[in-house]
Amino acid sequence: MKKKESMYGISKFVAPEFIFGTDSIGYVKRYLKNFSLTSPIVVTDSGLLKAGWANIIFKQLEEINIKYCVFKDITENPKDYEVEEIAKVIRGCNCDSIIAVGGGSVIDAAKAAGIMCTNPGSIRDYEGIDKIVHPMPPIICIPTTCGSSADVSQFAIITNTDEKYKMAIVSKSLIPDISIIDPKTLTTLPKELLIATSLDALTHAVESYVSLGSSPITDMFALKAIKLIFETLPKAARDPKNINYLEDLILASLVAGLAFSNASLGMVHAIAHSIGGYKNIRHGTCNAILLDSIIDFNYAYAAYRYDKISESLGYDLKNLKEEDRKKLLIEDIIDLKNKIGFNITLKDLQLKEGEIDIISRHAVNDPCMLTNPVMPTLEEVKEFIERNI
Amino acid sequence: MKKKESMYGISKFVAPEFIFGTDSIGYVKRYLKNFSLTSPIVVTDSGLLKAGWANIIFKQLEEINIKYCVFKDITENPKDYEVEEIAKVIRGCNCDSIIAVGGGSVIDAAKAAGIMCTNPGSIRDYEGIDKIVHPMPPIICIPTTCGSSADVSQFAIITNTDEKYKMAIVSKSLIPDISIIDPKTLTTLPKELLIATSLDALTHAVESYVSLGSSPITDMFALKAIKLIFETLPKAARDPKNINYLEDLILASLVAGLAFSNASLGMVHAIAHSIGGYKNIRHGTCNAILLDSIIDFNYAYAAYRYDKISESLGYDLKNLKEEDRKKLLIEDIIDLKNKIGFNITLKDLQLKEGEIDIISRHAVNDPCMLTNPVMPTLEEVKEFIERNI
Repeated sequence: MKKKESMYGISKFVAPEFIFGTDSIGYVKRYLKNFSLTSPIVVTDSGLLKAGWANIIFKQLEEINIKYCVFKDITENPKDYEVEEIAKVIRGCNCDSIIAVGGGSVIDAAKAAGIMCTNPGSIRDYEGIDKIVHPMPPIICIPTTCGSSADVSQFAIITNTDEKYKMAIVSKSLIPDISIIDPKTLTTLPKELLIATSLDALTHAVESYVSLGSSPITDMFALKAIKLIFETLPKAARDPKNINYLEDLILASLVAGLAFSNASLGMVHAIAHSIGGYKNIRHGTCNAILLDSIIDFNYAYAAYRYDKISESLGYDLKNLKEEDRKKLLIEDIIDLKNKIGFNITLKDLQLKEGEIDIISRHAVNDPCMLTNPVMPTLEEVKEFIERNI
Repeated sequence: MKKKESMYGISKFVAPEFIFGTDSIGYVKRYLKNFSLTSPIVVTDSGLLKAGWANIIFKQLEEINIKYCVFKDITENPKDYEVEEIAKVIRGCNCDSIIAVGGGSVIDAAKAAGIMCTNPGSIRDYEGIDKIVHPMPPIICIPTTCGSSADVSQFAIITNTDEKYKMAIVSKSLIPDISIIDPKTLTTLPKELLIATSLDALTHAVESYVSLGSSPITDMFALKAIKLIFETLPKAARDPKNINYLEDLILASLVAGLAFSNASLGMVHAIAHSIGGYKNIRHGTCNAILLDSIIDFNYAYAAYRYDKISESLGYDLKNLKEEDRKKLLIEDIIDLKNKIGFNITLKDLQLKEGEIDIISRHAVNDPCMLTNPVMPTLEEVKEFIERNI
């Protein structure tokens, strides 16, 4: 049979250079030299300082006689004023580059501060897609969780503290110059964060696979990440220092990041940004709470894609009706959450009537909603939340 | 069981930005504008001019009032003197960028000419790994075959016409700034070139998968390419204008290219460069001739990896002895070649005693040999060739 139409739409793919592997953290000084950088700021948080990973960077900088500034006061769900503070330190110290050592909060804050170094106005001016005009200073990332993938993505998510929601800033300019991905950094990650960030990566993979912006390249990455997480996360939850499990989880996070950075995301992230910003709740947790119930909401609009996910996990769907196929995937995700002891639900967030309205309004305006298999109305989002609390 | 050792070594990954999809060729003018380029040279060959693809580029340039030069005299297995000629035209016309529209020969020649625009000496000075010092002018590639992947790779292969062998130039600087991959360009590719370049892509995938430089990321790409080629090439050989087959073959070439650009290659390419340069034989043909017999040579040194290839093609190897597993993969490749009517062997090249010596000497010194599962001696390469003629 000769088909005349293309199977694939036109898609763009862009990824940063990255180093992957245990002990790769030692490459930071080499890249500073390669890029001829002489006065970086190291952006990190107190946990990473305690865990010793930031010190490994400081030591390398000292070995090559490089003076550096440090900003270590990033909080979870990084705030717009924190971004401005980092930018102030960068300008004050005349830094020529940014080294971000941390999870998504640290890296997103560092990337957003990079915008403010070379672009006018406030960070709120850059919310949305492709608003950054001037190139940012070089950014070297060392991710220390297995979820955000901010180290390879075109995204930075910053909390607008006046309006209490998370702004999605999306631009090719936000892709770091180099990401150095060392699985060993996960050995000091608290188990609850290992679980929350892995579920964040799973959500990236599932949402990018069913995204309207998916492509055969992002599909490869997404399915690989889903498989790795389903296989490895239950084992890692039982044995969270096992380097082999950590290698596969940070690999899953990497490939999920390459998928969503290029395919974008969907309704889980749109609502998670909104709830996370309003209630200051961990991003991976918000995603994990929503993932299965949004598959239920979306399934009819992307049944073929969701089924492909189940098939890639080894299920034979041939003799199942659509309703049963949907159930199978949803139950598989709930089963994974049970296995790893993740049992928070939307009910636990105790959202009030007025809050649901505000959260729903921000969610429908989130850029991630644009690539969801279906564009829900404000009413539908409110109903969805009300049905699940 | 708790393993303490890493499963993966440290690996680096770098890829250009790329656009993939039918009709993406129309994006050339957008990228010229994005990059603020005003005076490109278009490097192509007479076949592409006839087929009309170069004209689609010319038309776009005229639409945005950009003056351009053209170099259209690239031959198969591009020669060192052709590279110098292109560089001369670029300097003469004061071009600020290079647009390469063609197969591996055109793109490799264009990339090598880029080196000569900003670096001193002769192109022969850049043979080997990481010899390029100064950044090259921006390069936009539009590949028109489904094999070389020069449009995404760190490689440029140029024939040294004095010594009659192909020099491998390997450097991150050789990665184009943007690759625009339009499956439609394959609709005018002669069937024998479709087959030869697809077998080139298959060789990239197999060699990068067993390469000493492979990583979990390049592995994903390599296995995907192998699967796509085995599934699609026999169908495409019967129906070579079917756009769906062409989409999957150029996708296979793309992901095989991302694999080998980062994992490097092996003994097939080392000998293919040597034979191809000496006898001026098409690169994909040389690779296809050698692929199965070099699996025979290499198998014992990378049995586990070769077996993984067979398993990814759906074979159950559980009850097979090592010798039978090897045979299975070799016969599968021979069977694919038979299905698509590729029946050239090393015998057909009629190599003479003295030629075998010269070819073997160049092969052992080729940079691709460094990542072959085993490093053969000069004598072993000679014996290998003699055994197969």
